[in-house]
Amino acid sequence: MTGTPSSAPLRVALLGCGVVGSSVARLLTEHGDDFAARVGRPLEVVGIAVRRPGRDRSASGVDPDLFTTDAAGLVTRADIVVEVIGGIEPARGLILSAMAHGASVVTANKALLAEDGPTLYAAAQEHEVDLYYEAAVAGAIPLLRPLRESLAGDDVRKVIGIVNGTTNYVLDKMDTTGAGFDDAVAQAQALGYAEADPTADVEGFDAAAKAAILASLAFHTRVSGEHVHREGISDVTAADVAAAREMDCVVKLLAICEKVDGEDGAPGVSVRVHPAMIPRSHPLAGVREAFNAVFVDADAAGQLMFYGKGAGGDPTASAILGDVVAVARHRVGGGRGPGESTYADLPILTMGQALTRYHLSLDVHDRPGVLAQVATAFADHGVSIETVRQQTEDGPGERGASLVVVTHTATDAALSATVDALAALPVVRSVRSVMRVEGE
Amino acid sequence: MTGTPSSAPLRVALLGCGVVGSSVARLLTEHGDDFAARVGRPLEVVGIAVRRPGRDRSASGVDPDLFTTDAAGLVTRADIVVEVIGGIEPARGLILSAMAHGASVVTANKALLAEDGPTLYAAAQEHEVDLYYEAAVAGAIPLLRPLRESLAGDDVRKVIGIVNGTTNYVLDKMDTTGAGFDDAVAQAQALGYAEADPTADVEGFDAAAKAAILASLAFHTRVSGEHVHREGISDVTAADVAAAREMDCVVKLLAICEKVDGEDGAPGVSVRVHPAMIPRSHPLAGVREAFNAVFVDADAAGQLMFYGKGAGGDPTASAILGDVVAVARHRVGGGRGPGESTYADLPILTMGQALTRYHLSLDVHDRPGVLAQVATAFADHGVSIETVRQQTEDGPGERGASLVVVTHTATDAALSATVDALAALPVVRSVRSVMRVEGE
Repeated sequence: MTGTPSSAPLRVALLGCGVVGSSVARLLTEHGDDFAARVGRPLEVVGIAVRRPGRDRSASGVDPDLFTTDAAGLVTRADIVVEVIGGIEPARGLILSAMAHGASVVTANKALLAEDGPTLYAAAQEHEVDLYYEAAVAGAIPLLRPLRESLAGDDVRKVIGIVNGTTNYVLDKMDTTGAGFDDAVAQAQALGYAEADPTADVEGFDAAAKAAILASLAFHTRVSGEHVHREGISDVTAADVAAAREMDCVVKLLAICEKVDGEDGAPGVSVRVHPAMIPRSHPLAGVREAFNAVFVDADAAGQLMFYGKGAGGDPTASAILGDVVAVARHRVGGGRGPGESTYADLPILTMGQALTRYHLSLDVHDRPGVLAQVATAFADHGVSIETVRQQTEDGPGERGASLVVVTHTATDAALSATVDALAALPVVRSVRSVMRVEGE
Repeated sequence: MTGTPSSAPLRVALLGCGVVGSSVARLLTEHGDDFAARVGRPLEVVGIAVRRPGRDRSASGVDPDLFTTDAAGLVTRADIVVEVIGGIEPARGLILSAMAHGASVVTANKALLAEDGPTLYAAAQEHEVDLYYEAAVAGAIPLLRPLRESLAGDDVRKVIGIVNGTTNYVLDKMDTTGAGFDDAVAQAQALGYAEADPTADVEGFDAAAKAAILASLAFHTRVSGEHVHREGISDVTAADVAAAREMDCVVKLLAICEKVDGEDGAPGVSVRVHPAMIPRSHPLAGVREAFNAVFVDADAAGQLMFYGKGAGGDPTASAILGDVVAVARHRVGGGRGPGESTYADLPILTMGQALTRYHLSLDVHDRPGVLAQVATAFADHGVSIETVRQQTEDGPGERGASLVVVTHTATDAALSATVDALAALPVVRSVRSVMRVEGE
């Protein structure tokens, strides 16, 4: 690393001092000598912007004199600004001001990046500073740097991630204990894995923001949160999980970013978040509790997987501090990290254009010709059936049968239309469960 | 990225055109537009140094005019030199000459880095060029960049890797089919997973070079191949694998890099390659066939795992091309990647100082007091026993018993001395199997 004449400390400003922020502050202080050696200059925390300065933070071990409510002033006197406030404002305004004042920015703010990343990238470019955000997706797992840099010479075809620990915890409990959705959420809340209002997690908003970030990096295309088809897990029932189990599958909430050839043969990008069955033999199936993992399929590299903790103070701080060292090294040795790369500018496909597979469980009347009618409904929509299993069920009232169908790959529009057509068939008493299937 | 006035192509020279080299050449050509867009300037292959220019390489699709036997001349007229010859010389001389002529270097040469990395780093520093080598360890898996950069703000405690595909294939076959070592090696050779002379792989030389590289990066300490304690898998028997299976474990050849507190309380680094039992519940246990995976335990990040293909033309080329893009971006936008970091300069512990656990299987005489004598031998060496299982065995001659012992953690010296003492006990007929145990 090229040294600069100056050995003055690089000034680090911290915006936010919650669970993550206090980990960042503590680790920066405790390992000060390591940071100085790794960067080539010491890092000095010059201030920590908080909303409530009077709150007792003595447990964090942070010098209380560092706390300030003047975030706007703080960002003007730093070389590196770490933003861990979250949300759109005031985070965006503070980041833009920091960059305008010449600071490089490290942020964990997935919501802001998914909503308005290009504005931040443009500001970083204009002011010739760095914008790093490894912690925004999958916490401690080094993932964005591999996508932005390690795989920069490859052609990424698909990214499938378990990127939300709360929903993975809930689905894992449903799988291992047979619990229903509400009970599993209550367990997750009791253990601190889910918020009192779990909407952002269970309805897939958090995962959708991360999917947008992953797709942007993987496909060199601008993808924002509004491009992401989003379905949460609140409609996943114990019956769905049991149906998956019978198929030797497990239900996971997946963030899926895929490059596919559209109907005109030109490539497009499908970005979606939804629950799906994956085979228990798939590497992602073994991701338990609140862990995260991301599976990447690239043309030359083949299949890769990255696994680790997706949240928590210290794990998230690890990712943030790796970025802090990177941008600090650039301050010392020159250069900048890669900026936004959108040259491919691929069209974003609708959910209807996405290629998926369905698992359907139907209650049907047990009469001759039922299977023929059901099979015809699939054929009418150009959907091929991979497996079908019929079972007679004795219950109260008329004798019925259950029919479990797994399709081959088709457009989601064709599959969805097939389900509508099946539901309208007089021989179909009810569509018990519909779920997409991922993984070979 | 800051553009430079020049839009002339960056000149890439390739040293070697075997399986990996021809993949690199083909991908650089096929995806020329992508590389130009991602780097900000086109990349042009200006020459490929080969030993036998007359060989038919038409299948590679590479322009035959690019081949040259004048490697020494080629490296003087390139911006980026990719070295995939392997071995110490002429690779080292060519790399040093390339750097002296101002080129950045991307190499996959684990043997050279493990033997003489500091010389290469010093040359890169002196000539202010980049030295990147992601492909040297674990092929396509982004691993060195995460260690060098993503975890640069964390404190890595342990790295455990399956970094040699050949030995993993052999051990996997022994586990799944019950085959002996020789049969499994023959299978691996038939499928191209093992060389005709498999020594470098099965005796752990390849893994030891990779362990040295991993330990250097993880612990900011200079570790060379000669520091690595190395045991191969040629002494692993079907009985060892069966013993592991009985413990619900699997035998893997592991590259282990660990920061431990020595007897004086000061931290030191243990770097070793040896076969070990790991529990089937450990993430590394599920790594099948010739795949690679590396498990990292860091103070803040916690447990991480990286999984993918460790060898092969295209996977290795993916890692090389990611590095090519990185060093090319530096040519365009300024700056350099991180150089050698050895500030921590931790002492390298001997194998005797390493903390390990042993699994022992003993044949003993079935007499009163045998267990007491065996237990006393452990106690005399300060080794605690975690589990012991005794089983009477009826066979020809005197009735005997088998004793399976798993120890708690102790120094390898104490454990090794215990084994010697046990072997010398009159009541012990033979030490049937000794193997270290890793993973909780």
